[in-house]
Amino acid sequence: MPHDLYRPLELSFEGSAVIPADRTPFTLRARHEASGVERSIPGFWDGGSTYRARFAPDLVGGWAWLTESDDAALSGASGSFDVVSGDDHGPVRVAHRFHFAHADGTPFRPLGATAYNWLHQGEPLFSSTVDTIAEAGLNKFRFMVFPQGGGYIEHVPELMPFEKTDGRWDVSRPVPEFFRRLDRAVEMLGERGIQADVLLYNAYDRGQFGLNELTEDEDAVYLRYVVARLAAYPHVWWSLCNEFDQLERPDERWDRTGALLEQIDPYDHLRSIHNWIELYDNNKPWVTHASIQNGSATTDFGRANLYRDVYRKPVVLDEIKYEGDIPDRWGHLDAEELVHQFWITTVAGCYASHGESFVTETGSLHMVEGGPLRGESPARLAFLRGILEDVDGPGLDPIDKWDDPAYVAGVPRQVYVQYLGRSAPESWEFRLPIGFPGERPEQGDVFDVDVIDTWNMTITPAGRFTLDDVRRNEAFARASEPVSLPAGEALAVRITRVEA
Amino acid sequence: MPHDLYRPLELSFEGSAVIPADRTPFTLRARHEASGVERSIPGFWDGGSTYRARFAPDLVGGWAWLTESDDAALSGASGSFDVVSGDDHGPVRVAHRFHFAHADGTPFRPLGATAYNWLHQGEPLFSSTVDTIAEAGLNKFRFMVFPQGGGYIEHVPELMPFEKTDGRWDVSRPVPEFFRRLDRAVEMLGERGIQADVLLYNAYDRGQFGLNELTEDEDAVYLRYVVARLAAYPHVWWSLCNEFDQLERPDERWDRTGALLEQIDPYDHLRSIHNWIELYDNNKPWVTHASIQNGSATTDFGRANLYRDVYRKPVVLDEIKYEGDIPDRWGHLDAEELVHQFWITTVAGCYASHGESFVTETGSLHMVEGGPLRGESPARLAFLRGILEDVDGPGLDPIDKWDDPAYVAGVPRQVYVQYLGRSAPESWEFRLPIGFPGERPEQGDVFDVDVIDTWNMTITPAGRFTLDDVRRNEAFARASEPVSLPAGEALAVRITRVEA
Repeated sequence: MPHDLYRPLELSFEGSAVIPADRTPFTLRARHEASGVERSIPGFWDGGSTYRARFAPDLVGGWAWLTESDDAALSGASGSFDVVSGDDHGPVRVAHRFHFAHADGTPFRPLGATAYNWLHQGEPLFSSTVDTIAEAGLNKFRFMVFPQGGGYIEHVPELMPFEKTDGRWDVSRPVPEFFRRLDRAVEMLGERGIQADVLLYNAYDRGQFGLNELTEDEDAVYLRYVVARLAAYPHVWWSLCNEFDQLERPDERWDRTGALLEQIDPYDHLRSIHNWIELYDNNKPWVTHASIQNGSATTDFGRANLYRDVYRKPVVLDEIKYEGDIPDRWGHLDAEELVHQFWITTVAGCYASHGESFVTETGSLHMVEGGPLRGESPARLAFLRGILEDVDGPGLDPIDKWDDPAYVAGVPRQVYVQYLGRSAPESWEFRLPIGFPGERPEQGDVFDVDVIDTWNMTITPAGRFTLDDVRRNEAFARASEPVSLPAGEALAVRITRVEA
Repeated sequence: MPHDLYRPLELSFEGSAVIPADRTPFTLRARHEASGVERSIPGFWDGGSTYRARFAPDLVGGWAWLTESDDAALSGASGSFDVVSGDDHGPVRVAHRFHFAHADGTPFRPLGATAYNWLHQGEPLFSSTVDTIAEAGLNKFRFMVFPQGGGYIEHVPELMPFEKTDGRWDVSRPVPEFFRRLDRAVEMLGERGIQADVLLYNAYDRGQFGLNELTEDEDAVYLRYVVARLAAYPHVWWSLCNEFDQLERPDERWDRTGALLEQIDPYDHLRSIHNWIELYDNNKPWVTHASIQNGSATTDFGRANLYRDVYRKPVVLDEIKYEGDIPDRWGHLDAEELVHQFWITTVAGCYASHGESFVTETGSLHMVEGGPLRGESPARLAFLRGILEDVDGPGLDPIDKWDDPAYVAGVPRQVYVQYLGRSAPESWEFRLPIGFPGERPEQGDVFDVDVIDTWNMTITPAGRFTLDDVRRNEAFARASEPVSLPAGEALAVRITRVEA
């Protein structure tokens, strides 16, 4: 039976002995017959004398594989299989500098969810959280491999990632049951169409488990192991750490860990690192996109877009404060404010992640353990996702980033989105900014305008406009009347070019 | 007679032959007797058979020197001199990550001026421009070595930097008279207390002179020559180019040129590169501070500070649009707006440069050729400079960069500046933000408050306040009445801690 493109194919082997996890037990060499392309996939130990390799082929057609190992029992196995196109669009990559698309070219517009300690929860919380996120329409999920210690943590897991030797975590002895649960977590997300943004290291141990005290070498052993297990899942993203700068480590250690990750991941998944107070240098080559926390970068126009300019990579604001009711200022946004910030993010040409921090019955928060979403923002974010998915092009970019007082984003001469934010004007006069780079609109171009109510989730056609005054930095339809707007804040205008 | 610390000492020699400028004719090796510290200074050809070296000693005490060269006539000369402390504070360096200080520790707060093509003007314009800038109180001046072509350029210089060979610029044959004029230009600025921000390459040739068409090797020959001539002047800053991205060169060429500059400058002067639309990666190690153009980064709060976070270096907004009356949007700010933007820049923990673009009688602009300043902003910028120089500390930093709705900058627990911008409130209630890093204010701390009118240039004491409510992210003096404010926009509040 042929295998689907991009889907992981798992091969299992019996080894003669337990091979320490600090070296790769065997390598699977896969060769695409038509092109001669070769892929090298690290195998991993999965308990007892069982070893596995997971390979996600990226080309259709016949593949042949064989294994190589110092262990004779794991060396010289071989086989072949056929790959055909399936339903999977493949791993998400950076596209057009500031955006994302799957390997097959399908655009991906992230609207993230967050529950850091979800992996370590029991049922039904564990499974129901995935359903909740999928039903909410969020399509990327940040969670940590290592358990969280400290405040709002009501659940201490039984399963831990490693055995202990002489009272110390022994990374050469991973706990297969722990990692099978991690596999399952990633699989569940994939089954529901959610990208798994895996937080590999953990700044929230707070001395409770000591997993933040591994040496750099130990961290590397773990990294090789988790990459060998998970990298074949097409929907995996790697994030080195949430709030990396809470850990007192020199940046150079993160540089090396990031470079190692780039080197060992056969699939070149997206890689980032998320900050607390100090930004990591996201210009480092191993970083594929900037993953940023900032309490104020999205509270007003003209800010988050600056990150795009400096990093020249996609910018995902993975922490912009949460909808909730706790006293901490990071956790008591109302839904209107959070949705407002997502729209500001959108016209800044960036992406953002959601999190919810209402105190639950158990004393925890959704952004810690998952569970039902109670806020009013998710429905509006799903609506925003629909708007983003309607964009015929790589994504929305600020049109005139140098100095557009209206902060319009779009695809030049194709589609434009202007978010009116808190301004609540009575009417909107047709205007397009013109910037660099991209095509300039021309006299006589015709556009349809929709008025979008970002809170009430409505899209209302508002007429057709013809450019009759095109200047150096803006264009107008002077002959047309302004568009009357409904009362209230948080409206947006979408301007789509149509055939004249 | 002893020589003053940091001041250039010029030594002249007669060589036996003209040595091509693409190699260093000789090296001056200077040795500080007490410490054994050695400095290597490149010599340069200065016409005929005359060669010179300029050495600016950075340590007091006795120095001995000798020359080394392939040319016997330039080799083996020696001498000695004594260095004593003088009036010069030495080259400006980066201080406390985001600020500047002279080599002797004296803080330097840049308020820049701009006249790109000034070097190529005749008298009295050439000399009077320096007087004008000094009298205006501006303390850094951006100008280009190579002449500007294109619009608003009313003066084509007679002196050019190189001879031509077969119709092509020959960088191995510099024109001493051109570079003596450049020396004099730099000296004049130094005499008036102005830092010379020398723009080494030129994106505005526009095919008129062809100096933008030198090869990378030719650019390097010129760079070595200009560094050998100018680097001993303590007040030199290097900027590779204004609007570097107007030139169609790969970033890697700028990377190499910047790295070469870092390598060959014996004095390690400040180094930057200024952008048009695309930002250079100012995280590159050779860049000492970010020199940025952006039309909107300083038009509202909460923006420019983001550049600090990503570059972790001083940020100088060397182009924030100009006070003037030309139609281009970069050149028709009114003075109120430009001063407003400088204050926004200040509370963002950044620095900015002034430029003026009223069309002059000759059809040019001050920011092109210099001449009298006609605008109303310079007096207010000199006032701002006074406020900055009153700061007892390295400089003003955003206190709570993560999310302070008031955008207060300062030195934690010492001095705070809050700019009220366009908001024009009737009163101001005492409040201090608290952030990371830095000392936290404490219950009972006492502060004096001044109300600053940034346009009318007044500082009015507004009472003494005692902290009686210190929270996680802010502190208040609840027992005190709010400060009544005069009518009008563009007020600031300065909060200075005093002994209780």
